[in-house]
Amino acid sequence: MDVNRRSVEAAGRVALDLLMTRRSIRAFTKEGIDEETKRALLAAAMSAPTAHGRKSRRFAVVDRPEARKRVLVELPWFAPALGSAFNVLVLGSPSDCAQEGYWLVDCAAATENLLLAATFLGLGAVWMGIAPIEENMAAARRAFDLPEGLVPFSLVALGKPGEAPAPREEAYDDSLLVRVDGGSVP
Amino acid sequence: MDVNRRSVEAAGRVALDLLMTRRSIRAFTKEGIDEETKRALLAAAMSAPTAHGRKSRRFAVVDRPEARKRVLVELPWFAPALGSAFNVLVLGSPSDCAQEGYWLVDCAAATENLLLAATFLGLGAVWMGIAPIEENMAAARRAFDLPEGLVPFSLVALGKPGEAPAPREEAYDDSLLVRVDGGSVP
Repeated sequence: MDVNRRSVEAAGRVALDLLMTRRSIRAFTKEGIDEETKRALLAAAMSAPTAHGRKSRRFAVVDRPEARKRVLVELPWFAPALGSAFNVLVLGSPSDCAQEGYWLVDCAAATENLLLAATFLGLGAVWMGIAPIEENMAAARRAFDLPEGLVPFSLVALGKPGEAPAPREEAYDDSLLVRVDGGSVP
Repeated sequence: MDVNRRSVEAAGRVALDLLMTRRSIRAFTKEGIDEETKRALLAAAMSAPTAHGRKSRRFAVVDRPEARKRVLVELPWFAPALGSAFNVLVLGSPSDCAQEGYWLVDCAAATENLLLAATFLGLGAVWMGIAPIEENMAAARRAFDLPEGLVPFSLVALGKPGEAPAPREEAYDDSLLVRVDGGSVP
């Protein structure tokens, strides 16, 4: 094994270790996030896969105080939306999907990428779920003036962490494994 | 900034760079994957967030030839299931969700983590979508003898890459950004 391959492997191990450290962060410092970092976060979200490679989701930055306050009126349990440096609203575009409903799945993959990119950049983030809960979706439609044809999926609060939750317990959980058709259980 | 903080930041940048390199891999070598690596991949999937921290999804390894062949009978476009080192079937557990439908979202986040962990470990992976497409779900129910109460979400083929697709174009795509309520566009 050459030196280059060794260093690629080592980098990958570090990346996987960092992935495993992700925790939900709901409290933030007052520090802002620069535009370059915002673009890197959005690019990571956009790089998540979509079914049939369709442009099935969109992204909007929510940062104006008026917009944030309206979120809390309609979705009072979305408190991190107010204290964060900014929020990303992930939106589905059902008409761009090859098959009905894939926007939901594609938006979730993009949201997870956004959380991981934040972790890698030393930022905190929390996923506030909207879809597919009808009540939350109706509240988000009241809170935001959404472009036609787009469906609210999630709101992600982002910022410099203002809390340091304890590391997660061991992620590997035997109780989440099932055996199907005689397959192995590692 | 001290040396330790610099090295943490550098590691995070490398991890983000690796995240951006993920591509769908549909061809694999005949090389197997060791059990420790399988566990690391499953642990990464299990570390994805779930709504209200519920155990809303399960994981099964699909590796027996008979099971793989049955997949191709019912879902002929799932060809990578046969040539891969092994497959992970991601299953939703609707009865474990706090609110109806969140299993779909939670399964998608776990599937994305699985793809990223594979990328970090130098492996290839492709997400073969099942839910929420009713036709695919019915086919997967015929292909697999599923435990009661669990719903097929995705099948992920994993192995040593047998193809090297061109790097993706720039992920950041202005056309995926929308402005909502006067929010900024980075």
